[in-house]
Formats: sequence, structure tokens, C-alpha cells
Amino acid sequence: MSAERPAVAIIMGSQSDWETMKNAADTLEALDIGYEARIISAHRTPERLVSFATGARDEGFKIIIAGAGGAAHLPGMTAAMTPLPVFGVPVQSKALSGQDSLLSIVQMPAGIPVGTLAIGKAGAVNAALLAAAVLALHDEEIADRLDEWRARQSAAVANYPIDEAP
Amino acid sequence: MSAERPAVAIIMGSQSDWETMKNAADTLEALDIGYEARIISAHRTPERLVSFATGARDEGFKIIIAGAGGAAHLPGMTAAMTPLPVFGVPVQSKALSGQDSLLSIVQMPAGIPVGTLAIGKAGAVNAALLAAAVLALHDEEIADRLDEWRARQSAAVANYPIDEAP
Amino acid sequence: MSAERPAVAIIMGSQSDWETMKNAADTLEALDIGYEARIISAHRTPERLVSFATGARDEGFKIIIAGAGGAAHLPGMTAAMTPLPVFGVPVQSKALSGQDSLLSIVQMPAGIPVGTLAIGKAGAVNAALLAAAVLALHDEEIADRLDEWRARQSAAVANYPIDEAP
Amino acid sequence: MSAERPAVAIIMGSQSDWETMKNAADTLEALDIGYEARIISAHRTPERLVSFATGARDEGFKIIIAGAGGAAHLPGMTAAMTPLPVFGVPVQSKALSGQDSLLSIVQMPAGIPVGTLAIGKAGAVNAALLAAAVLALHDEEIADRLDEWRARQSAAVANYPIDEAP
Amino acid sequence: MSAERPAVAIIMGSQSDWETMKNAADTLEALDIGYEARIISAHRTPERLVSFATGARDEGFKIIIAGAGGAAHLPGMTAAMTPLPVFGVPVQSKALSGQDSLLSIVQMPAGIPVGTLAIGKAGAVNAALLAAAVLALHDEEIADRLDEWRARQSAAVANYPIDEAP
Amino acid sequence: MSAERPAVAIIMGSQSDWETMKNAADTLEALDIGYEARIISAHRTPERLVSFATGARDEGFKIIIAGAGGAAHLPGMTAAMTPLPVFGVPVQSKALSGQDSLLSIVQMPAGIPVGTLAIGKAGAVNAALLAAAVLALHDEEIADRLDEWRARQSAAVANYPIDEAP
Amino acid sequence: MSAERPAVAIIMGSQSDWETMKNAADTLEALDIGYEARIISAHRTPERLVSFATGARDEGFKIIIAGAGGAAHLPGMTAAMTPLPVFGVPVQSKALSGQDSLLSIVQMPAGIPVGTLAIGKAGAVNAALLAAAVLALHDEEIADRLDEWRARQSAAVANYPIDEAP
Amino acid sequence: MSAERPAVAIIMGSQSDWETMKNAADTLEALDIGYEARIISAHRTPERLVSFATGARDEGFKIIIAGAGGAAHLPGMTAAMTPLPVFGVPVQSKALSGQDSLLSIVQMPAGIPVGTLAIGKAGAVNAALLAAAVLALHDEEIADRLDEWRARQSAAVANYPIDEAP
Repeated sequence: MSAERPAVAIIMGSQSDWETMKNAADTLEALDIGYEARIISAHRTPERLVSFATGARDEGFKIIIAGAGGAAHLPGMTAAMTPLPVFGVPVQSKALSGQDSLLSIVQMPAGIPVGTLAIGKAGAVNAALLAAAVLALHDEEIADRLDEWRARQSAAVANYPIDEAP
Repeated sequence: MSAERPAVAIIMGSQSDWETMKNAADTLEALDIGYEARIISAHRTPERLVSFATGARDEGFKIIIAGAGGAAHLPGMTAAMTPLPVFGVPVQSKALSGQDSLLSIVQMPAGIPVGTLAIGKAGAVNAALLAAAVLALHDEEIADRLDEWRARQSAAVANYPIDEAP
Repeated sequence: MSAERPAVAIIMGSQSDWETMKNAADTLEALDIGYEARIISAHRTPERLVSFATGARDEGFKIIIAGAGGAAHLPGMTAAMTPLPVFGVPVQSKALSGQDSLLSIVQMPAGIPVGTLAIGKAGAVNAALLAAAVLALHDEEIADRLDEWRARQSAAVANYPIDEAP
Repeated sequence: MSAERPAVAIIMGSQSDWETMKNAADTLEALDIGYEARIISAHRTPERLVSFATGARDEGFKIIIAGAGGAAHLPGMTAAMTPLPVFGVPVQSKALSGQDSLLSIVQMPAGIPVGTLAIGKAGAVNAALLAAAVLALHDEEIADRLDEWRARQSAAVANYPIDEAP
Repeated sequence: MSAERPAVAIIMGSQSDWETMKNAADTLEALDIGYEARIISAHRTPERLVSFATGARDEGFKIIIAGAGGAAHLPGMTAAMTPLPVFGVPVQSKALSGQDSLLSIVQMPAGIPVGTLAIGKAGAVNAALLAAAVLALHDEEIADRLDEWRARQSAAVANYPIDEAP
Repeated sequence: MSAERPAVAIIMGSQSDWETMKNAADTLEALDIGYEARIISAHRTPERLVSFATGARDEGFKIIIAGAGGAAHLPGMTAAMTPLPVFGVPVQSKALSGQDSLLSIVQMPAGIPVGTLAIGKAGAVNAALLAAAVLALHDEEIADRLDEWRARQSAAVANYPIDEAP
Repeated sequence: MSAERPAVAIIMGSQSDWETMKNAADTLEALDIGYEARIISAHRTPERLVSFATGARDEGFKIIIAGAGGAAHLPGMTAAMTPLPVFGVPVQSKALSGQDSLLSIVQMPAGIPVGTLAIGKAGAVNAALLAAAVLALHDEEIADRLDEWRARQSAAVANYPIDEAP
Repeated sequence: MSAERPAVAIIMGSQSDWETMKNAADTLEALDIGYEARIISAHRTPERLVSFATGARDEGFKIIIAGAGGAAHLPGMTAAMTPLPVFGVPVQSKALSGQDSLLSIVQMPAGIPVGTLAIGKAGAVNAALLAAAVLALHDEEIADRLDEWRARQSAAVANYPIDEAP
């Protein structure tokens, strides 16, 4: 139950997922949204998962971004134990390029939702943007920063004949 | 602009998607959350899409649930034109069983997120539950109703040896 | 804790999985091996899962057969919380025919194994046979019954020109 | 409106697609067919997309070649807003090797066609050749140049025992 | 050779493909565009294929729509022997639901393009619409009819809250 | 029939599989479980396979770990000729990244089970852990060592904000 | 050993495969080529497989057609134990529609070939035709009958505008 | 027509396929079987294909090995125009790793068979071995050399504990 808790928890299944999930953290920082990032392995630290997920709302978190690869159970199991919105990021796996991660995260049964983003870095960025969009519903400052971020993004798309690029 | 607008817009690419998306509507009703459901075809009514998506925030919507099948462009194009959170439901397609719908919705590039749910009916139910989880962040009544819904769901899982079921 | 516990626990994510998992139960019965079958939803009853999985060894179970479909987290999460051997059965899902179930179960990260069987009914039968093979290592009666079962199976393969079948 | 417009517009979703789409431009140049190449992101610059697509015919374009990767909405959304023939090039994506791009482009619903070419460089070359074939229907000079191009291509296939190649 | 030839040839690999390809014929009829539909099996009647494809331009055809299923070689082989634009329709196959048809048609090597449409009926309709779009470039009447067809299609998308549909 | 035989046989289809299967061997060593590793090609040395598989139980082996890639027949054919538990490891293949290996191993028909692990190195490690879990059922020392191994694994998951890692 | 043996052996993994493999038998009969059809399960009757495969050449067979589904090991294991040409037919499986059967049969390692045909009935017909083509190399009567069969097949393709079919 | 023709024709769709198909040539050489290797592009040199395929039997060839990648039409179109046995080798393609090549070759309709081998190098080696197996039916010297080749292959599989390899 802490008011100091940042709004967003970024959790991931292993140290190696940080390379992907760092993009979520960077995007939240660019939007000046607080977050906390931790490794919580559904398989290797199930107690830590239960403790985190069941307590996340009371701790003050509002949104959980969970990244995992392969038989990726972290996002879904977290969603099973918290009423908070959970956004899942399929980390690109070695053999199957994240197809296993994607299906393990997105194909949740009716009753426990995980809002799933794209495989890999793009998904991590977008999980942060989706979290921002949710927070923006009741935070005009975040709404403004998100609008600006999107406007800058649009403006950054070069608008001249590409074959005549300087 | 309008305070009377329901919180959730459910949009879908065609009349035939209603069979799937109706499950989102039913779930929102079970949680006593207002919604408006409309057909907006990204391909056949692009003007309607632009008009809806660019105006959705000002109209008072908070969350958009978009369902589509095949080369499913509705969720992503909506997300491109609104800062509101967009949740995508891949409708099960005929030839490819929704694999095309899923990839067309979830594999968004960095910058424009769509929180994607499972293919078909389960995804529609879960889009509604995810919307509820978002609204619950600032609406204690919805939070309570969602908690109750989840508790009832858990309680409904039979807890006796299944081979001795009455 | 209990010596009366049957050797095998058959758990499954939902009532509808029983149609598949019943084949595991029937096969164990044919081999006169005790089992207990229960619904434990990783997503809808996570507490029940934690309670079952963490206590399964002390309760006297020796092997756990877990069946689930879609984003099938039950086998892997059970394996995360018990040192007992866990055998996973991918239940055939509607949209993706069990491809999601299979990948969600088999692609476990190094550290937490799930011995995965085929999608659907064949997998359920085989999970029971694999459990029997494990129990047979220290139970000569089960070993004998399994040998007989296999011999009968071999003998049942018709051995005459098929186009002249009576 | 403008007679000076080249016949073909090559549009693509991002700067990084140019590496692929440049092959369409080079092929058009080899056939002495005018083109204009621009970045138009369906997701990051939807207004630019609407403006371009709705005005393309009046501007004098005859054919649009659109390349995009991942959840590739550019070709289909362009086709939704112009009666001109649209040819789509699935750019090879990182995680899924263009399988997502291909399905997002080719699986258009009845009513809005996108003539889709192969994933990657071959598709870009072929989009240009298909555009040439269309233009050749009413331009004998292009028809002649295309015939010559195809004849040279055929002649360039080595016609001797390959294991005795000089 | 012949000015009486209709503009569009619809060819297909077998009698059973007519169920799918009939949708191309119907769409052309709706647009008052002439066509001729024939069975030409790349595998069972290769001579007929060579004769047709090499002579199609001289016979007066302008566009070829080719449908085939499984190892679908008809569209690509036709494109190899004519400079006319070829649009391919992957017919939904039994075991692989048209995934084999799609890849066999769309993955053409650089040099010989086939503009590929969606698997099945939608693809057949769209092949006709794409042919119309090509013909419309130099035929204002077809352009007008296509515009009207598209406008009617847009107008046919119901525009009222779907849950209040009469 | 030798009492000195180690409990686990690790077999693999070719020399090149050792890079993957060595991870099973290393894991067994870490748990102080005896094993013997041999190349047995189902296709190139079918006699060796028959001899090994039919004699494995009498030789004193308790569990067989079999790794193979591509059309991977070794695990299933071994299981066909021994009542011992067989655990299969799909070796990552070149063209299809182990998808062929996985399906060839896991999709066994009812009657002959192969407990299948993940593609590649993770699968090899887990095959060893699953073998340990089976042996632990009747060997308290192995049970203790496995418990310790699992505890160490859990403890090794860093438990601090990852973005503040030292 | 025996001159009376028919030229072709049709073997299959289970009784249920006969529905598919019967098409190979019927095709051989139409070409007046002798065959013998038997059930040989690689998994349930491995001894029968070894006995058959190692003895097939001496028994007088010339070609083996092997059909199987799922983790289909019969064709490859037969090829491992005979120098005769083996043609494999992937039987359409329930969950994965024969994708598992296909990969299990076709992806053989260098050294042991299986000439693989299409999934299901078409593959069974074609295995017989390929066997006929092999036998025709040294049997002019079979060559003539195969030529006639092919000519009849070509002639049977309707050659009139399909939309004017009587 | 010609007795001097080698028994086997190796054809391939492009120069770049030689890297793969060379393995077929090398294997035939190791078995002292004559062959001729040529580039015949179904798409870029259809006339050469027709000329070769329709004349192959009269020229004295007995078996055709055809390799191609992507939308691989060469093996199937050759088989459509010759009664000789055709063995197809799916060359590994860039984007889809040969999945497109495999399906384009193996999924032939009933009536025109292509005996398909594995994707890539292994498939090329095996096409040669399968050709040898066919020729061996009526050539005892080839039969002997093939038997020796297979025996050497079996003997080359190391038969000692792999972890004690010298």
C-alpha cells in the first residue's frame, strides 16, 4: 500500500529479457512515467511471482508490463493473481523466433486477459505506450506528454521523395 | 465532448464479426459498464474509421475494443488515430483460423500499440475484462464488480474429483 | 503425508478438458494404477494450483499428469512448484488446433522440465503409459502389466494382407 | 490533376523499407518508367496516408506500389481509399521473416484488392514488373521495353552443363 | 488476333476450382466486364497451358486471372509465358487450408510477377476487382462502374449501433 | 544384465547432436547421476538401435534420453522397443529450426509415449532434470540433490531492481 | 527369394490409414501392377517392421510405398533397413492436418532417402504413379499403360468455357 | 534416342541452386553414376523447360532430379511433361527457409507425382541416393556400390561412449 510506488511494474522472466524490456523502461522514462523493473521468473521463482502478483495492487502499482520468452507463463500467471491490467511482451526466442512466446501469452482463456504486444523490442516500446495511454485517461500531464511524443514521432517521418534524400 | 458517451466503444470490421464481438458486449453488460457497438470497416468505410478514430477521445470514449479478421487493419489503424487505449480481438478467419488476424493485429511497429487478446470468443470476453481492469483503476464500483466477477469465476471451477462428478 | 494417495494425479485446466484427459484415466485403470483427477485452473484458481503443486509430494503423489489448452500454463507452473515428474498433455484448442497448447507446454526454459506428449487423446493415453513406465521401475507388478498391455497392443495389429481382410 | 506526375507511386512504411523497395525503383528505372518514392507510414502518419491515397488518382498516378513489414497496413489501407491498382510488397520482418507482413497484406477481405508479391527484394522487383505489365497494355514503348527486359532475362540463364561452367 | 476476345481470361487448374473462381466471374459480370473462363491444368494439360499462355496477348486478352490449389503452378507458369498482368487466386486446399496454394503462388522469384490475392472466395472477388481497376485506367466507363460498385459497397455497411439493429 | 550400468542412457542420432546433448550430460553430472552417452542413428545404424533398445532394460538402464533432429525417429523408435521411460530432445535443425524435430518426436500415436522436452539446449538440460525427478522417487539422495539444485537455481535469480543492477 | 511376389509393397502404420492408402492400391490396380498391402506399425510392431524391411529385397519386392500419420516413422525406418526405393505418404492427421506427418517423413537426414508425396489421398495416388514410373523404366507394358493413363487423364480435363458447361 | 546420355539429369532453377544441387552431383559421382547438370528455369526459360521435359525420355535419361526454391515449379512442371520419375529437392529459401519450396514441390495434385526429398543439402544427397536405388533395381553393379556406400555410412557412425571420444 504505498503511494510512492511508481505506476508501472516491469517484470520479466530472466536477466536476458532485460535487453528487450529495457525498451519499455526507456519509453516510460521518455514519458516521465515512474516504473520499477524486476526479474520474476514464473518457473524458477514461483513464490516471488505469487507474492508480487497478489500484492501488486495494494503496493500501489497500476499497470504491469510482463515480458517472457518460450513457454512464457509470466504475463498470464500474473494476470491470474491481480485485477490490474497486465500487458504482455513476447520476447524473441532462439529456436522459434518468439512464435512460442506469442502464443503462450496471447492465447489466454476467457476470464483472464493479457493485452499482448508485438514480439521483441517493438512490443516492449508499445507496452510502455499502452501503459501511458491508460494512465493518460486520468492524468492530463501524461496525456499531454503522450500527445507530444506521438506528434514528434509523426513529424520524424521524412516527407520528401526518398530517392532524393539528402 | 459528451459526458453521456459510454466508456467503451466496441467496433468491428463487418456484420459477421458481431457473433464474436457480442461476447465483449455481454461481458461489459455483466459488469454494468456502458458501451456502444458499431461496424466500422477499415477497408470499406475508411472515412467512417477516420472520423470515428480521430474523434473518439473528444466524444468521451475512454477505451476502444476493435475486432477484425483476415488482414485485420481496424485495430491498428484506429490506434494510429487516437491516443486512447485500443484493445484488439482477432476474429477467427475461415482459411487460416485467425492466424492472419492475430499477426495483422499484434505485430504493430514500435510507436502505435494495440493490446491484443486471444483469437475469437475468448479474446472478445477478455477485451472487455481488460477494459474493465483499466476503468477500475479510477472507479471503485467497477473495481468491486470486477473483483466479484473474478471471484465468482474462481468459485465456479468444480473442486471435487472429476471422475466422481455427480 | 498420506500412504493412501494414489500414485498419479491427473489435473486439467477446465471441465471441458476432461473429454481428453479421461483417456489418461482410462489407461491408468486398464493398468490398475490408482489416480485422482481434479480440475485445477492455473488462471482461474491460482491458489488451488499453488496449494496442490507445493503439497503434491507430501501428499504422496508420485507423478502428475497435467492437461491444458491454448496458453496452457498448468503443466509448467505445476512443474515449477514440485520436484515430482510432470507430464503435460496439450489439449486440442479451437482456433489453432493445439499448436498453441503444444508450444506453451513443451517450450519450457532450462531448469523446469515438463515431459510433453502428443496433442489430444493420444497424448492423454501416452501420459498414462509414461507414468506407468516410471512406476514400473520400482514396481514389478506394474512392470508386468505394462509389458502385457504392450504385448496385447502389438498382437492387436492385424497381420494379413489388408485388402483381403475378412 | 497533373500530367507531369510519374505513372507509379512507390510508398513504404518506414525509412528502413527503402532497402527493399529500392529494388522496385531500380527496376522501374531499368524500364524507363517514371516513379515517385515516398515514406508514408499508415500508423505514424495516418493523415499523410489519407491525403495521399484519396488524392492519388487525381494527382495523375496510375499504379501504387506499397511496401510494409510486420502488421503491414499500408497497402490495404491505401487500396481502401483509391480505385487505382495497388500492388503490395511484404517487407521481411525481423522475428517472423515476413510471414506477418505477407498475411497482413494478402489476406484482404472481398471488396478491396491488393495484388501481393513475394516477401522482400524479389517482391519489390516484381511489383515494378507487374506495374510495367499494366502500363504496357496501353503503351507500346513500355511493352517493347518489357519484352526486351524479359528476353534478356531469359537469355541470361546459363545454358551449358553447370558442372562444366568456365 | 481477335478484337472480340473479352478483356479477362479466368483460368483454373481443375473443375473443382470453379466453385471458388465463379466469384471472380460473378464480380466481372456485376461490373459488365467481359471474360472467358476455362480449365487449364498446368500439370494435367501442360500443352494447353503453353498454347494458352504464349498466345494470350495475341488473342486479345488483357488480363489473366489464374486460380489453383495445393502446389499451385498455374499462375506462375502462365506469367512465365505471357507479358500480360497475371493475378493469382490461391484456392483453399483440403489438408493445409490454402497455405500451400498461397506460398506456391506468391513466392515467385524476381523476374516473373504474379499479383496474388487472398485465399479462397475473397481472393477471387478481389482478382476481378483488381482487373477492373487496371482496365479502368483506360476505360472511363469501367472506372465509373467500379467507383459505383465501391460506393455501393461502402454504403452497404450498416451504420447504427449493432446491438440495436432492427 | 549389469548392475554397474549407469541409470541413464543418453543417445543421439549423430555426432553433431552432441553439442546439444552434452547439456544433458553436464546436468546429470551436476546431480551426480551416472550416465552413458552414445551415438545411435535410427537411420544409419538401425541394427544398433534395435540391439540397444530391446536390451536396455536388461542391461540395467532405467531411463533413456534420446536426442535427434529433422525427421527425428530415434526417440520414438527406441520407445517402441523398450518399456523404459524415454525422454526426447528435439535438436534444432538448420532449415526449420527444430519444428520438424519437435513434431517428429512429440506427435507419437497412442500406445508408445515419448516425454518430449523443449527444442535445443534447454530441452537437453530438462531431460536430465526430468530423469533426476524420476530417479528421485526412489532415491532420497538424488531427491535431496535435486531439491538443492532447484533451490540454488531459484536463489540465483537476481532480486533487485534490474535497472539498478550493480 | 520369391518370383511370385508382386512388385510393390504398400505398408501403413494402422488400420485407419487404409482409407488413404487404398488409393495407392486402386491406382496400381488400374495400371495392372501387382501389390501387397499390409499393416506394419513402426511403433506397435517394430519386430514386424525389422523383419519386413530387412527382407523386402530378397522377398522380391521392388518398391515400397509407406503411409503413416503424426510422428510418422514408418517410411524412414523402412528406408533405413532396405536399399529398395521407398516412397512415403503423409496421412492427414487430426490435430495438425498432416503437417506433422509430412515433416516426419520428408525431412530425412542425408544418407537415407524417402521420396515423399503430398498429404493424404493425392499422395497415395501419386506414390502408385511414381512406382509405376520406376517400373516402366524396364517394363514396356507398364510404360505403355502409364502413358495411356496419363493421356486419359489429360483428355478428361474439360476443354470448353466452364461457365457454359452443359 | 541416345545411349550415351547419362542416366540422371540434374536440373535446377537458377545458378544459385548449384550450391545445393552440387551435393546430388557429388553423391552420384561417388556411386559412379553418370549425370548431366543444367540450369532450367521454369519461370525464366519456360521453352527450355518444355523442350527438356518433353524430350527427356527420348534423349535417354531415366531419372530427373529437379531442385528449386520459393514458388518452386520446376519439379512439378517437369513431371507434368515426362513419364520419367522426377525427384524434387526444395532449395532453402531466404525468407521462409524452404517452407515455401517444400510445399510448392510436395503438394502436387493426384495424377502428377514428384518424389520430394528434404529441404537443402540433405535433400540433394538423398535425391541422388534415391535415383541410385531406382537404377539398382536393374543394375547389379550400382546395387553393389549402393550397398557398399550404405555399409560405409553405417560403419562411419562412431560406436563408443561419446563423452570418452579420443
